[in-house]
Amino acid sequence: MVEAVEETVRQPWRATLLSIFPEMFPGPLGLSLAGRALEEGLWSIDAVDIRGFAPGRHRNVDDSPFGGGAGMVMRPDVLDAAIRGTPAPGPLVYMTPRGRMLDQSLVRQLAEGPGVRVLCGRFEGVDQRVLEAHEALEISVGDFVLSGGEPAALVMLDAIVRLLPGVIGKQESLAEESFEWGLLEYPHYTRPQVWDGREVPDVLLSGHHEKINAWRKRQAEDVTRRRRPDLWDRYQAAKTGNEG
Amino acid sequence: MVEAVEETVRQPWRATLLSIFPEMFPGPLGLSLAGRALEEGLWSIDAVDIRGFAPGRHRNVDDSPFGGGAGMVMRPDVLDAAIRGTPAPGPLVYMTPRGRMLDQSLVRQLAEGPGVRVLCGRFEGVDQRVLEAHEALEISVGDFVLSGGEPAALVMLDAIVRLLPGVIGKQESLAEESFEWGLLEYPHYTRPQVWDGREVPDVLLSGHHEKINAWRKRQAEDVTRRRRPDLWDRYQAAKTGNEG
Repeated sequence: MVEAVEETVRQPWRATLLSIFPEMFPGPLGLSLAGRALEEGLWSIDAVDIRGFAPGRHRNVDDSPFGGGAGMVMRPDVLDAAIRGTPAPGPLVYMTPRGRMLDQSLVRQLAEGPGVRVLCGRFEGVDQRVLEAHEALEISVGDFVLSGGEPAALVMLDAIVRLLPGVIGKQESLAEESFEWGLLEYPHYTRPQVWDGREVPDVLLSGHHEKINAWRKRQAEDVTRRRRPDLWDRYQAAKTGNEG
Repeated sequence: MVEAVEETVRQPWRATLLSIFPEMFPGPLGLSLAGRALEEGLWSIDAVDIRGFAPGRHRNVDDSPFGGGAGMVMRPDVLDAAIRGTPAPGPLVYMTPRGRMLDQSLVRQLAEGPGVRVLCGRFEGVDQRVLEAHEALEISVGDFVLSGGEPAALVMLDAIVRLLPGVIGKQESLAEESFEWGLLEYPHYTRPQVWDGREVPDVLLSGHHEKINAWRKRQAEDVTRRRRPDLWDRYQAAKTGNEG
């Protein structure tokens, strides 16, 4: 019966990074919230050096692009060896501006799985064939160019780790409620009540919870409509759908 | 005349972080491309501990939100003291999902300035009044929730630093050409020419530069249309505008 009990123990969520700069990890994730959770064994992180899978004395991981052009491209054979040589749970993710935009629902989905294996590209990118062969899940953190996939992976992991069971208390986890609505967050105020001649909005001092919630929702709606017409349109469509 | 000469010397671009986890910096930015550029003095980074500006023995930087709710909010008086007490060049940036989405044109704009001062929030966020008083530029790296502004700041700085003069060679800097068009990037291929039974597209072996460029542009257009209708619409509109 010991086996049965062991099977019900949830394995900690596992992040596995494939990178030519494994020393970038855990980096900022070794501190603060994620760092404490790492120490407590609520998740684990392994960073594997891709160069360890490159053949020859020079351990070259890249080569010139076919068709010419700027920069170097990471070789499919080396990356394939690294991927196959690093068994670990979770989907194979490749960080790239060509990928699906990371958002809170994708973060949640990845947090609910057993972990992720993240391929971090450098130079001009990686050979397309290795992404196709492994059916990599391509994820982007935004429409900008980074020096490599590592900083993007750090951001994605930070967002995931705070959702893992036990990492933050029940109270704080309410923090993403506004993203649940599909709205930006309402503004926050704390002591002092008057600062720099600026007062905290009266309603927040009223103690009237219903009014406070209504005010906060209106603020969230206002800032979303003004700053993010794309989110606002989706929010409106969802509301109509629910009511219709 | 010595003064006149000194005035023409470009000061290195300066990143100034205000954080309660200053030890997160330079982190990954101390390695690789950004790390080499840091050693060469092409940019500089200072991370300042906000707690150093908090009064009292406990150095509290946060307090409960007015109106109730989850989490803690960073105090305006403490943040204001940290901002005023840290003179440095560049706009004051606050990393928040409520902000303007970081994209390559905003990255370029920030890289062309003298630097940035980045306020990194923790907990539930910061008091709204301090953002208003300092007219902070609110920037988001995506529609997801992080444990704090630090990982977002690392991504933004990585994107900026690679654009600073001298950080990457002329060749590699062409890498962002596809974002210049407003399209996602075309796929890359390198040796071996046949790998895992998969061949490099013939056109890339043709040596016919015009055909290669046309193929790459078509690939970039295809992936953009399929994966990012939002970018595709903007690209189409811009093209029509240019031709019309």
